[in-house]
Amino acid sequence: MDKINEESVINLNPIRRGGFVSPFVRKYAIKYLDGYSVCDGCDGDLQKISNPPIRKIEEILTAKYQMDRLMITFGAREAMAVAARAVLSRGDIVLVDQNRHYSSILAIELSGASFVEVESSGYPEYEITPEKFRDAIEDVIKAKGKKPALILLTHVDGNWGNIADAKAVGAIAQEYKIPFLLNAAYSAGRFAFDSEEIGADFVAVSGHKSFGSVGPVGALLYRDKWGDKIEKKSHAYPLKKLYSLGCTVRGVAAAGFYQALLELDERLDRWPDEVEKTRYFVEKMEGLVADGIRQLGARPKIHDLVYFETPVLFEMGQKRRERGCFLAKELKKRGITGLKPGRTRGFKVSVYGLRKKEIDHVINSFKEILNGR
Amino acid sequence: MDKINEESVINLNPIRRGGFVSPFVRKYAIKYLDGYSVCDGCDGDLQKISNPPIRKIEEILTAKYQMDRLMITFGAREAMAVAARAVLSRGDIVLVDQNRHYSSILAIELSGASFVEVESSGYPEYEITPEKFRDAIEDVIKAKGKKPALILLTHVDGNWGNIADAKAVGAIAQEYKIPFLLNAAYSAGRFAFDSEEIGADFVAVSGHKSFGSVGPVGALLYRDKWGDKIEKKSHAYPLKKLYSLGCTVRGVAAAGFYQALLELDERLDRWPDEVEKTRYFVEKMEGLVADGIRQLGARPKIHDLVYFETPVLFEMGQKRRERGCFLAKELKKRGITGLKPGRTRGFKVSVYGLRKKEIDHVINSFKEILNGR
Repeated sequence: MDKINEESVINLNPIRRGGFVSPFVRKYAIKYLDGYSVCDGCDGDLQKISNPPIRKIEEILTAKYQMDRLMITFGAREAMAVAARAVLSRGDIVLVDQNRHYSSILAIELSGASFVEVESSGYPEYEITPEKFRDAIEDVIKAKGKKPALILLTHVDGNWGNIADAKAVGAIAQEYKIPFLLNAAYSAGRFAFDSEEIGADFVAVSGHKSFGSVGPVGALLYRDKWGDKIEKKSHAYPLKKLYSLGCTVRGVAAAGFYQALLELDERLDRWPDEVEKTRYFVEKMEGLVADGIRQLGARPKIHDLVYFETPVLFEMGQKRRERGCFLAKELKKRGITGLKPGRTRGFKVSVYGLRKKEIDHVINSFKEILNGR
Repeated sequence: MDKINEESVINLNPIRRGGFVSPFVRKYAIKYLDGYSVCDGCDGDLQKISNPPIRKIEEILTAKYQMDRLMITFGAREAMAVAARAVLSRGDIVLVDQNRHYSSILAIELSGASFVEVESSGYPEYEITPEKFRDAIEDVIKAKGKKPALILLTHVDGNWGNIADAKAVGAIAQEYKIPFLLNAAYSAGRFAFDSEEIGADFVAVSGHKSFGSVGPVGALLYRDKWGDKIEKKSHAYPLKKLYSLGCTVRGVAAAGFYQALLELDERLDRWPDEVEKTRYFVEKMEGLVADGIRQLGARPKIHDLVYFETPVLFEMGQKRRERGCFLAKELKKRGITGLKPGRTRGFKVSVYGLRKKEIDHVINSFKEILNGR
């Protein structure tokens, strides 16, 4: 298992856990710390650079996730913004799931479009029901006389760690011939899926969130048929792609992403273990105190991001001088970080990439802290 | 003087020379290679993070370059794109100097505006004459019945290494009350200047091009009065800045930029030496063969980026089996890189940050190569 980080602190922040780089990636990335480090062999297109082999990024990712083409971006949000910009016009309507990341909405706003939210099932599972997309499409058609211009689905959301049924949403998108953008920031790089089977037109991925890459880096994967729109060229400079401003990750993150992709198969193979460890973690945490700790989101877990509702910790905080900050403090004493100070009603964590004994240390730490109540 | 790079190769590529990171920056950056490495202490705004002290980036740069505020971006082109997007509307006209980087035009195109070019003096000096901006403004007013909406000036261009008279252009911009954007990618970080004295509304800077920072990182510096436009918030998420998609450099480049800024004063103090070394280099190179090598752009050099017109090397290539590629090959044998293979009619180079003996090695290498003619 990969080295966690230099200080040997256990960081439970879900946005961090899929971004820790292995010694293999670290050793390589260090060679590319200088500004414009990847540009020596560039003939005007970052994605075609052979040394370091940045051109392999497209080859590896399109093969692994069954897509035709790729544009390197600074992350998943920038990938969504490119897709939104390329596909949408002012006045268009986008259907988006309620569990989406805020940056999905910013991408839509920047394109001049507006959005209609497809609600989740709400507390406690917050699941996205694909059929609600059908209802929403019909509602938009009735109200506006035209179809939504895009469906944006969050494959795995960043709050509950639910995996949405992308294939079912994709089937509805195809039925209505609506372009389908999948935000795979928390899925691609963690587990394998088939974008073609899903029926996605666009898939946004994040190197630093889920591929164990140096950041900021990500990619927009897309179908050939969208090539002209996504790769729209400048009028004045007909070789330069407008939406990437001609070039994006001119530095270490591009090299780091390439190197991280060499470990992708091994990483994806580990996924069943990660889910198993997560379920073990949830079971033990929920068992610490009756009705005091409860995993929200879909059950059983099929993703490492876990949201715990923790009324017992909130009550403890009420009696402390430091109020809600006691928890982060107590954890820090035990070498555990990644919880926002003050969050005791509930919080999200991940044990992705942690060893069993580290997970046990986390569980035992919570146990000790709860003993103080 | 800083370590050049690990292979001890002398890289003459001007976009590389201002981006080599010092051991001081390297040592710090290595701690932040993990994805989202700077996000542990984030409360929703990258620019306010205290650990690592990313919040200091704004403090240091606005003080050094006499500006009010700053937005961290992925580089200077992204900074120009934010300014263009915030200030321009469809149908607006931007005045831009002929020496501009292509990405300036892409930024304008993305905003929906068009541009009018202010020509340089052409061969051999390619200088930008500030008064031509006045003429161009009058022409636009006559032809379109309205003023240009923005003046975009390239402070130091990337082809000839000329320093434009930003103060004179700024005075004209102020006279006509036209917003003034200075692309300082090749100036800020190399030498000090006073944005207030220049009368700039916006200054785009590049960490990886001129500050010896890990990339990709840069910033848009701007006046308070533009705050509402540049920092325009999302309708749905009123705390999130729309044009940065809520966050930009979530990784090593943000930490590296901060650390590089701790060496900024020392770096700026070295500038007179850099100019002196450049003049020495030009004098020696031009002296190698009568009428065979000539520095283009303004004379004498006041910036490290040098363009040499080299008919003598072109003629040599005509007689070789490898044609124009012989030069890059011959240089490579002598541990020198950074010239595009095939470029022998002319090329751009920089000796920024090189030691005197390294510059002499470059000069002697050209001398040896020329002896083979």
